[in-house]
Amino acid sequence: MKKYDYIILGSGPVAMHLLAKFERTTNKVLLIEKGLWGGTCPNTGCQPKIFIEGTVRPVLNSYYLAGKGIKEAAKIDWPTLMARKKKIWAAFHKNERASMTSENTDTVQGTGILTGPHTVKVNDQEYEGKQIVIGTGLSPRDLDIPGGEYAITNNEFFDLDQLPKRAIVIGGGYVAMELATILQAAGTEVTILQHSDRLLRPFDQDYVQELKQIMEERGIKFHMNAPVKQIAKDGDQYTVITTNGENFDTDLVINAAGRKPNVEGMGLEEVGVDFDSKRGIKVNEHMQTSVPSIFAAGDVADNGQPNLTPVAWVDAYHIINFVENGEKSPIKYPPVATNAFTYPEIAQVGIHEDEMEEGDYVKTLDLSDMFFSIGEGDFHAKLKVILNKDGVVRGASELSIHAAEDINNFVPLIGRKDPNKFVEENLTFAFPTPANNLDTLFR
Amino acid sequence: MKKYDYIILGSGPVAMHLLAKFERTTNKVLLIEKGLWGGTCPNTGCQPKIFIEGTVRPVLNSYYLAGKGIKEAAKIDWPTLMARKKKIWAAFHKNERASMTSENTDTVQGTGILTGPHTVKVNDQEYEGKQIVIGTGLSPRDLDIPGGEYAITNNEFFDLDQLPKRAIVIGGGYVAMELATILQAAGTEVTILQHSDRLLRPFDQDYVQELKQIMEERGIKFHMNAPVKQIAKDGDQYTVITTNGENFDTDLVINAAGRKPNVEGMGLEEVGVDFDSKRGIKVNEHMQTSVPSIFAAGDVADNGQPNLTPVAWVDAYHIINFVENGEKSPIKYPPVATNAFTYPEIAQVGIHEDEMEEGDYVKTLDLSDMFFSIGEGDFHAKLKVILNKDGVVRGASELSIHAAEDINNFVPLIGRKDPNKFVEENLTFAFPTPANNLDTLFR
Repeated sequence: MKKYDYIILGSGPVAMHLLAKFERTTNKVLLIEKGLWGGTCPNTGCQPKIFIEGTVRPVLNSYYLAGKGIKEAAKIDWPTLMARKKKIWAAFHKNERASMTSENTDTVQGTGILTGPHTVKVNDQEYEGKQIVIGTGLSPRDLDIPGGEYAITNNEFFDLDQLPKRAIVIGGGYVAMELATILQAAGTEVTILQHSDRLLRPFDQDYVQELKQIMEERGIKFHMNAPVKQIAKDGDQYTVITTNGENFDTDLVINAAGRKPNVEGMGLEEVGVDFDSKRGIKVNEHMQTSVPSIFAAGDVADNGQPNLTPVAWVDAYHIINFVENGEKSPIKYPPVATNAFTYPEIAQVGIHEDEMEEGDYVKTLDLSDMFFSIGEGDFHAKLKVILNKDGVVRGASELSIHAAEDINNFVPLIGRKDPNKFVEENLTFAFPTPANNLDTLFR
Repeated sequence: MKKYDYIILGSGPVAMHLLAKFERTTNKVLLIEKGLWGGTCPNTGCQPKIFIEGTVRPVLNSYYLAGKGIKEAAKIDWPTLMARKKKIWAAFHKNERASMTSENTDTVQGTGILTGPHTVKVNDQEYEGKQIVIGTGLSPRDLDIPGGEYAITNNEFFDLDQLPKRAIVIGGGYVAMELATILQAAGTEVTILQHSDRLLRPFDQDYVQELKQIMEERGIKFHMNAPVKQIAKDGDQYTVITTNGENFDTDLVINAAGRKPNVEGMGLEEVGVDFDSKRGIKVNEHMQTSVPSIFAAGDVADNGQPNLTPVAWVDAYHIINFVENGEKSPIKYPPVATNAFTYPEIAQVGIHEDEMEEGDYVKTLDLSDMFFSIGEGDFHAKLKVILNKDGVVRGASELSIHAAEDINNFVPLIGRKDPNKFVEENLTFAFPTPANNLDTLFR
């Protein structure tokens, strides 16, 4: 039986950051991937999204400036964009596995099945690892309704050759909101059906309401409290039926209703690794599962953190620090910044208003009257910062076309008592850039 | 004679940051402005530029994506843009002086003339101030050649109702490069005439060469080592003649050849304030001039720093700390990030390659093959970081369409020995955003 220091299940962000650190060690690693090398993020998640976003941004940017200094909004040419996307990703797919294989790292395509605390079987071959790391991520949760199989997910969305005339997006999280943004910008009539009365839960709900209104003004229709009970197909057309009895005819149905941890069919029960089919694999403060030689990290781990690529990196680094460097203190997550690539973007770090405690207060900054924002047509830009009674920064929320990048300026401030001092020490950011908002807030 | 704690000459960034801090004090202030309230930055500098940039960005962004996912590049409608600009700035002008006037702050329109270490005369009225702060900034340096008066400067550029068919830009600094970028994006045939063989001196010269080539590919013509010796006018048309005997017919000539400190006609000699007509007013480590009760700050001060708005803020804060809080240690500038709003942008913090010392080394990151950049058509994006032999970060240079904002991510790293540790502590920046480049560089 071939022996390794680490066997890693899943080749996504967890694996990539483990391998990056292992490059400087002599650790022997076996990397097992069942599906696409690189996992969700580069294949059907963040990366194809950000690629398409690159086109969406100038299109919507010029839409808001049309008649105000720009003659006419730019328009997306979807088939060309998709053909280009496929060509670029074909090259990526060709290289991705090879880029992860090295003298110290073997790669196997297949489903890894745990057979013991130190053993994994794949393609009927068994391997031994001192440590096993599970980083298998999430998959779209099937729609458990008649006709649920007619809905596509993010797995298929980024290969859509032709733009649908109409689309229904089921869900109200960031995947739903981002895909709706892209499709509408490209020219599709988009309707969002959300089962509850809330969208984008991790974000400031005032800003979410404002974002919803901005998206509605561009033509995206929202139906809230509209759980879907059936999808019917008639030729090339679908009808989506809600429990309130509404019917929606459409050319494409997208299931963005939720994602589930990839915990099935990998022998977790047999080996005694505790997990919950909704929350994922139970881990302790060192990312160890109930079997100490088996770790879980990233989205599949029930780590109490949002399911985000950089969180997977933190998990991966902690496993290395724990195993290799004898780290004793529990995993500690930096303040996690997150955003939705809607237009405008919405972003968050630390707490938002709903999570405020007694004595906390809010400082707001209207960005929309700054020359920067006026020039870009960012007419709703704003941000707010939450501080506690001692002046410690607890959270920041932003709604603007630069919110994703800008929110990062607040990451080093979270938990700090002296934002003014921090800002004075870093006063000479390039000007005028959104980072200068810190000066306006804390001068 | 009316008495004040502070008399401030010039209502630009120095004054604005002094007033922001004074709001929390009982200091009585007299603010004197000879020209436009707010100074160069909001009137004829950074702010109208960034306003117009808001339109330029989606236009050039869509230009690079045309045929790659966008049907056709968006186009600038110059007269509409300018009409909008004028309307917005008319409202700004109406309010700007009033916004600086308060119970503790009087404002006077006129030329302030020093009459003693504590006295200033304006409009034949004399005022007394415990401290006097000179923050009068810079003006365009006249072209000292026949016909030099035919050239407009940044003072007139942002009110140009009609787009010229052809324009000559004299100069190779950031003003020249930015105005050339704007005009070409709007449809003008632009030629840059630079007296020397260098452009954008404060930036990495490899990147400057690449930027020049990108601008040339868009149609901007560069003539290097081409000092101008005469401008001739014939009706609506001008001919610019260089010392090498080349002639350029054009519809507009822009003088962006340099700026000079505003030190004339304010009684500096009479009161004994030392200055140099090119470098500005001499100051010590507390921004005191040769007359200790008279301070100079910002662009007009010979402070050894680049002439940038945030540097003026640092100067202003130091004066307050010195006078009000008894600060003893000399002024300390944070690492100063700077950029040109060209397309792509070029940005710098700390040292660049020409300033490297023995043992320093360069880490480069090609951003152009990242999905982020490919999606946006940012085909030349790249960055480099300079470290010394002890691993201390000494500088960073970036060429990308987000360089101005991205360079700010390197500000807290300059002078740090442990970039990897800093990055691990801030690993959870929003993803994928340019800030994540830190992880790629220092993992």
